[in-house]
Amino acid sequence: MDHRELEEGSALSLDFAKLKKVAACGTDVIPTVVQNADTKEVLIIAYVNDEALRATLATKVATFWSTSRKELWIKGATSGDTLDLAEVRVNCEQNSLLFLVRPRRGGVCHTKDAAGHTRPGCFYRVLTADGLAPAPQS
Amino acid sequence: MDHRELEEGSALSLDFAKLKKVAACGTDVIPTVVQNADTKEVLIIAYVNDEALRATLATKVATFWSTSRKELWIKGATSGDTLDLAEVRVNCEQNSLLFLVRPRRGGVCHTKDAAGHTRPGCFYRVLTADGLAPAPQS
Repeated sequence: MDHRELEEGSALSLDFAKLKKVAACGTDVIPTVVQNADTKEVLIIAYVNDEALRATLATKVATFWSTSRKELWIKGATSGDTLDLAEVRVNCEQNSLLFLVRPRRGGVCHTKDAAGHTRPGCFYRVLTADGLAPAPQS
Repeated sequence: MDHRELEEGSALSLDFAKLKKVAACGTDVIPTVVQNADTKEVLIIAYVNDEALRATLATKVATFWSTSRKELWIKGATSGDTLDLAEVRVNCEQNSLLFLVRPRRGGVCHTKDAAGHTRPGCFYRVLTADGLAPAPQS
């Protein structure tokens, strides 16, 4: 399945190989949910290593570890879609994180909607009996 | 660090080994954010394999794959804290899921608050300059 079909299509084609690649990226990372602090929309799941967490806390800008590029990923450094940090939460067993953020320009995802606007979150499709459909607010 | 300190203490002690164990559990899984459909609180991150996703859709009850016990984990089957499914969303790259749920009894986490009530979510601590502190609503 090509990128366009994967990202814009209506066929469910879950990438079950991703997590193994993440775990094999050579750096210890923690899965991190990123949530809009105001609307409470869940925006993205990303991965954070010790360096990214320290950078996030120091700069107050959500920073991840790119497990594919194997480098620090200051979200928005290229696109401009910076996520200002409001709060970091930790789960009971301390094996996942939650970043509460405020998107500086509104956009978050690397995809664009039909009108050409960067989407405000990555979870813009809902699973139905017939496959994927646009989520209500997307 | 013992379980009580890990779950109730104020020291950050992130479990960076977890994700590798998850990836090595012998089953292909997808990281899944579970969010309260009404309050929008992020409740937990869990892992879902093909069987768990099918079970979730068929029963309308959030079902995960326990990567430690290596078995289907029907959330609430033991505790009673069942999560009724409202919606399943998929991210752009189809490598993570979002379950929107309604907790049948209110409780979600396996931990209890000071009053002895099962917590409504796992992200009950916020990271501060001095370590972990109770999150505002927790």
